[in-house]
Amino acid sequence: MTNEALELSINLVWVMLGAFFVFFMHAGFAMVEAGFTRSKNAVNILMKNILTISIGGIVYFAVGYAIMFGDTANGLIGTSGFALSGVDDIAFFVFQAMFAATCATIISGAVAERTNIVAYMALVVVMTAFIYPVVGHWIWQGDGWLTALGFTDFAGSTVVHLTGAVGALVVAAMVGPRVGKYAKGVVNVIPGHSIPLGALGVFILWLGWYGFNGASTLAADPSLVPGVIANTFLAASAGVIATAFYTRLRYGFIDGSLTLNGALAGLVSITAGAANLSIVGAIIAGAIGGFILVEAVRFIDHKLKVDDPVGAVAVHGVAGIWGTLAVGLFDITGGGLLYGGGATLLGVQALGVVAIIAWTASTVALSTLVIKAFIPLRVTHEEEVQGLDIAEHGAYAYEMQDTFKGVIKSNDSFAQRLTNLGKVSSSQNVQEKRI
Amino acid sequence: MTNEALELSINLVWVMLGAFFVFFMHAGFAMVEAGFTRSKNAVNILMKNILTISIGGIVYFAVGYAIMFGDTANGLIGTSGFALSGVDDIAFFVFQAMFAATCATIISGAVAERTNIVAYMALVVVMTAFIYPVVGHWIWQGDGWLTALGFTDFAGSTVVHLTGAVGALVVAAMVGPRVGKYAKGVVNVIPGHSIPLGALGVFILWLGWYGFNGASTLAADPSLVPGVIANTFLAASAGVIATAFYTRLRYGFIDGSLTLNGALAGLVSITAGAANLSIVGAIIAGAIGGFILVEAVRFIDHKLKVDDPVGAVAVHGVAGIWGTLAVGLFDITGGGLLYGGGATLLGVQALGVVAIIAWTASTVALSTLVIKAFIPLRVTHEEEVQGLDIAEHGAYAYEMQDTFKGVIKSNDSFAQRLTNLGKVSSSQNVQEKRI
Amino acid sequence: MTNEALELSINLVWVMLGAFFVFFMHAGFAMVEAGFTRSKNAVNILMKNILTISIGGIVYFAVGYAIMFGDTANGLIGTSGFALSGVDDIAFFVFQAMFAATCATIISGAVAERTNIVAYMALVVVMTAFIYPVVGHWIWQGDGWLTALGFTDFAGSTVVHLTGAVGALVVAAMVGPRVGKYAKGVVNVIPGHSIPLGALGVFILWLGWYGFNGASTLAADPSLVPGVIANTFLAASAGVIATAFYTRLRYGFIDGSLTLNGALAGLVSITAGAANLSIVGAIIAGAIGGFILVEAVRFIDHKLKVDDPVGAVAVHGVAGIWGTLAVGLFDITGGGLLYGGGATLLGVQALGVVAIIAWTASTVALSTLVIKAFIPLRVTHEEEVQGLDIAEHGAYAYEMQDTFKGVIKSNDSFAQRLTNLGKVSSSQNVQEKRI
Repeated sequence: MTNEALELSINLVWVMLGAFFVFFMHAGFAMVEAGFTRSKNAVNILMKNILTISIGGIVYFAVGYAIMFGDTANGLIGTSGFALSGVDDIAFFVFQAMFAATCATIISGAVAERTNIVAYMALVVVMTAFIYPVVGHWIWQGDGWLTALGFTDFAGSTVVHLTGAVGALVVAAMVGPRVGKYAKGVVNVIPGHSIPLGALGVFILWLGWYGFNGASTLAADPSLVPGVIANTFLAASAGVIATAFYTRLRYGFIDGSLTLNGALAGLVSITAGAANLSIVGAIIAGAIGGFILVEAVRFIDHKLKVDDPVGAVAVHGVAGIWGTLAVGLFDITGGGLLYGGGATLLGVQALGVVAIIAWTASTVALSTLVIKAFIPLRVTHEEEVQGLDIAEHGAYAYEMQDTFKGVIKSNDSFAQRLTNLGKVSSSQNVQEKRI
Repeated sequence: MTNEALELSINLVWVMLGAFFVFFMHAGFAMVEAGFTRSKNAVNILMKNILTISIGGIVYFAVGYAIMFGDTANGLIGTSGFALSGVDDIAFFVFQAMFAATCATIISGAVAERTNIVAYMALVVVMTAFIYPVVGHWIWQGDGWLTALGFTDFAGSTVVHLTGAVGALVVAAMVGPRVGKYAKGVVNVIPGHSIPLGALGVFILWLGWYGFNGASTLAADPSLVPGVIANTFLAASAGVIATAFYTRLRYGFIDGSLTLNGALAGLVSITAGAANLSIVGAIIAGAIGGFILVEAVRFIDHKLKVDDPVGAVAVHGVAGIWGTLAVGLFDITGGGLLYGGGATLLGVQALGVVAIIAWTASTVALSTLVIKAFIPLRVTHEEEVQGLDIAEHGAYAYEMQDTFKGVIKSNDSFAQRLTNLGKVSSSQNVQEKRI
Repeated sequence: MTNEALELSINLVWVMLGAFFVFFMHAGFAMVEAGFTRSKNAVNILMKNILTISIGGIVYFAVGYAIMFGDTANGLIGTSGFALSGVDDIAFFVFQAMFAATCATIISGAVAERTNIVAYMALVVVMTAFIYPVVGHWIWQGDGWLTALGFTDFAGSTVVHLTGAVGALVVAAMVGPRVGKYAKGVVNVIPGHSIPLGALGVFILWLGWYGFNGASTLAADPSLVPGVIANTFLAASAGVIATAFYTRLRYGFIDGSLTLNGALAGLVSITAGAANLSIVGAIIAGAIGGFILVEAVRFIDHKLKVDDPVGAVAVHGVAGIWGTLAVGLFDITGGGLLYGGGATLLGVQALGVVAIIAWTASTVALSTLVIKAFIPLRVTHEEEVQGLDIAEHGAYAYEMQDTFKGVIKSNDSFAQRLTNLGKVSSSQNVQEKRI
C-alpha cells in the first residue's frame, strides 16, 4: 500500500473507533435517564432512547446529512447529498450520524415521565432532519456563516449540546411539569429509581466522550489527539471534584446525582475547546462547569420552574454555553482573552450562542406546536399516575417478586395488572395466568 | 518500518478492536438473558454466560480452531492446528475464538431457567469443539464445500447465528418448557425481571456488532469498512422501528422486550450481507427482520410450543435465515435476484441454510442424548420452583432489604429521612412531600 | 506522511484505545464494588469510585507522573516533569494516569461500607501522588533499582495490583470490620445486593484488561500483541473454570461471586507475564490463580479476620503475587525456572514482591495514621447501621416503591430465606447470622 492509502486506513480506524464510542453514548443516556427517573416509567424512557438513535440514524441518512454537509446556499443550509447521493466519505457520515442522534436524545431526559412517545418521535424526526443539521451547517460544514466569523466549536458544546438543551428546555416547558412536581407552591423532589444505573450511564458517557472529542480530529494525529484526550479526561475529573465539594458545602453532603452530572458538565465544558485549551485551562473550565451545574439545576428547578427530571438543560445547555465561551477566554492558539488574544473571539462565541439559542428555540417551539395540533404532547393524568410503562407498553420494568418471594401481596398486584392489561392479555409481556 | 509492516500493524489494531467488541457481546448476552428471565434464576444464567466464553475459548484453542481452519479433508473438516500448533496468525485465532463462544451462548438463553448447568457446560464443549467449527469449515475456511458452491455469509448470519439458534431450538425442545409455561392449554407469559438490564444488554450487543461485522473484513479497508458499518447501524435501526410500530399495530402498544429484540433481529438480518448490500438494501433487510421477529416469537411460543424465554430462536434463527437469503435478493456485487443477478445465489443460500439446519439439528440432538445418558438435562421440579440460584448456587441474585426497609415501613422511614435531611430539605435528592 | 509518522499514528491509536479501555475499568470496579456490597451503601461506593478516577487523574498529572517517570534520583524516585512540564508524550501520560487511578480504586472495595469518604479521598491523593508512583519508578521508569535487577512485571501484577491490594489490606485492617461481621466469634457473611451488577462489572473489567495488558506493549506490534491478548483472554477463562469447579467441590455448588472474582484472579495472574508466557503457560497460571483465590478469600475472612467486602486483597494481592512469581516459573523468553532458565529470575521476582509489600505497607500505614489524626477513618456506628447513603449523601440508591407499590413485608421473607438456606449455611454467599 502507498503511504497515502496507509494514512487513510489509520484515520479510518480512528474515526470508526470514535463513531462506535459515540454510539455507545446512547446506552449511557439510556441508563442515566432510566436511573434518574421513576421505575414506573423505565420501559418508556428506554424505548424513547433506543428509538431516538434508530430514527435519528435513518432520518439523518435520508435528509439530515445533506442539510448539514451538502453544498451551501448562502452559508445557511446544505442542499445536496440526500440519501448520501454523491457522498464519498461514508465513514464521516457514520460518525456524524451518531452525533445527530446524540443531540436529539438530550430532549428525551428533560421531557421524561409524562410525554407521549409518538409526539416525542415526531420531534426526533424534526431535530435530526432539519433543526440540528442547520446548526451544524452554520458551524461545521465549512462555508457556514458562523464559520466565516471565526466561531470555534471543536466537538460541539454548542452544535450538539446547547442545541439539544434548548430543545429540551422549550419542550419541557411546553409539556409542563410532572404531576405533583410543583404542588401548592412547594417544589417537590422526585427521586430517580436507581443511582447505580445512573452512575453506569455516566461512566459510559464519559468513555464515549473520548470518541466524541478525540475522533473530532478526524485523524490519528499525534500532535493533536493526546492533548484533546487529556483535556477531556481532566475536565471531567475537575467537574466531578468541583461538584462533590460544592454540594457538600452547599447542602451538607456529597450529592450523588449532582456529582454524577458534574462529570457530564465537565465534559460539556471542554467539548468546544478540547483542541484549543491547555490542560490547566481544561481543568479550570471543567471545575467551573461543575460549579455552574449545581446552581443551574437549582435555578431551573426553583426559579424557572421547568421540570427537567435528569438535569439535561443544566448539563448540556448551561455548561454548553460556558464551554463555548471558555474558548474565547482560554484559547491558547491565539484568540483567548486571558492569553492576550483580545475580546474578538469571545464576542464571536457569544454571538454564536445567541444565534443558536434563537434558531433552536423558535424552530423547536414552532415544530412542537405543529405536532401538538395532531398528537397530544403528554399522556393523560391517569396514565401518568399509573406509570407510562403500563399505559404505553403494557409492562413493568421490573418483576422482582421471585426475589422477594412471599413478600409481595401478589394477588392484589396481579389482579391489578390483569385489569390494566386486559386489553392486551395475549401479548408477549403479559401473563394470562400467574406462574 | 516498511509499508508491509505498517499495513500489518493497522490491520492488527482493527482486528483486535473487533475481537474486543465481540468479547464484550458476551456481557450483552449475559445482561439480555438475565434481564429477560426471572430474578430467582439470575445468578444461574450469569454463571452460564461467563462459563460459556471461558470454556468456549479454551476448547476452541485446543480443538475447535483446528477443526474449523485446519487443512481440509475433502472440504468437510479441518485436520491440523490443534492447540494452535503451526498456526501463525494468533490475532485471527483470538477474533475467531470470540465468535465461537458467541455461537454457543445463544443456546443458554433459550434453555434458561430449568437446565442443569453441568449438562449445559458439556453442550458448550461439543458446540465449540466440533459442531460449530465444522459449519465454519464448510463456509469460512476457504476450501469448504459450501464455499465452493458460492455460498455467501460475510459475518455469520448462518455460521454463527443460525447454528446457535438451531442448537437452541433442539435443546429447548428436548429439555421441555418451564414449569407452568404451558398449563391447561394456556400459553402463559413469564415476564423477565428487569427490562433495564435487557436494554443495556441490547445496546452492548449492538455496539459489539460493529466489531463483529466490521472486523470481519480482517483489514481496515476504507473501501469496504464504512459501508459495512453503515449497513450494520441502519439495519439495526430499521429493526427497532419496524418492531416498535408493528407491535403497536399488533398488540396496541410498543412492546418493550420485542422492540429490544428488534434491534438484534435487524443486526442478524444484515450480518450475512453487510458487505454485499446497499444502505437502502440494509434498511429494508433490517426492517423485514424486525417484522419477522414479532411473528416468529409468537409462532414458536404458541404454535411450536417450544419455550424460549429470551426469544433466541426467533432472533438468531429466523432472522438468521432471512439475513442469509437476503443476500441472494439484495446483493449488489452481482448475485442479487432483485439486481438482475438471477436466482442462482438465492438457491445456493437456501441450500446452505438447509444443510446447516440438518447438520446442526442432528448433531446437537445426538450430543444432547449422549449427555442426557450421563447427566440429567434439567433440574428437579422442586429446584426449578425454588429457583436455580438457591438450588445450584446457594445465593440470591438480589439482597435489597436494606433499601426496601424504607418501603416496608414507609411512614417511619420518610419521617426518618425528613429528620435526617431537614437541613437540606430543599435539595435535589430529598422530597418535601411524597409523590 | 513518512513511515515514521505513520508508525507514530498507528501506535497512538493503539495506546489511546488501551487508555480508553483502562478508563472503562473504573466503571467495572464501580459496578463490582456496588454489586458486592449492600444497597444501603451503594451511592457511597459509587461516589468513592468516580472520585477516585477524578482525583487520581488530576493528582497524577500534577505530581504522580513526575515521581514515577521523571529523571531518577539513584533509581529511587523521579524528580522532574511536575504538571507535565517538559513532558512530550502526552499519550503515554494519559495511559499511565488511568493505571494510577486503578491502583487506588482497589482500596475502595476493601474498605467499603464503613469508611469516611473524606479520609478515603485523602488516601487516594497519597496513593496517586507518591506511594504508587515510587513503586512504578522502581519497576517501569527504566532506571529503577528493581529494573536494574531484572525484575519483570509486564503490565502490573505487582506495580498496580499488589500495590493496591497491600494498601487495601492495611487500611481495611486499620479501619476495622463492618458492624456485625465478626460477632460472638462467628464469621458472618454479608451478601452483596446485586450479583448482576457485579457480573456486569467483571465483564467490563475483563474487557478493559485487553487494553491494560494489550496496550502495555506501547506499540501495535504484530509479533507481540496477539500473544498478549490470547494469554489475557485464556488466563481469565481458566480462572473462571477453576473457580467454578473448585467451589462446587469445596462448597457443593458453583459460587456466583467467587466465580466472578475468579475471572479477575485469572487476569491478575497473567498481568505480569502476558508477554512472557506461552498460551498453555497462561492457562495454567490463570487456573492456579482461580484456585488460590478461593482459599485466599477464606483465609483472609476466617484466619486474618480482615473484613474485605469484595475480596480485593485476594484478587489483586494474592493473585498479584502469584502472577509475579509465575513469570519466574513460566517465562519462555529465557528466565523461566521450568524452561531451564534457572532460579535467578524467580528470586528477583520474589525480592521485588517483598520490597513492594514492605514499601507499600509501611507508607500506607503511616499515611493512614496521619490522616486519622485529622479525619475520623470511619463513620459512626449509627451512620453505618443506617447506611452511608443516607448518612453521607442524603439519598437512597434505589427508589423502587413505584414498582413494588409498598407491599414488601420483611420478616416473612427473612424467615423464609433462612429456612431455604439452612442446607448451605456454611457457604460464601449465605449468612450464618442475620446482620
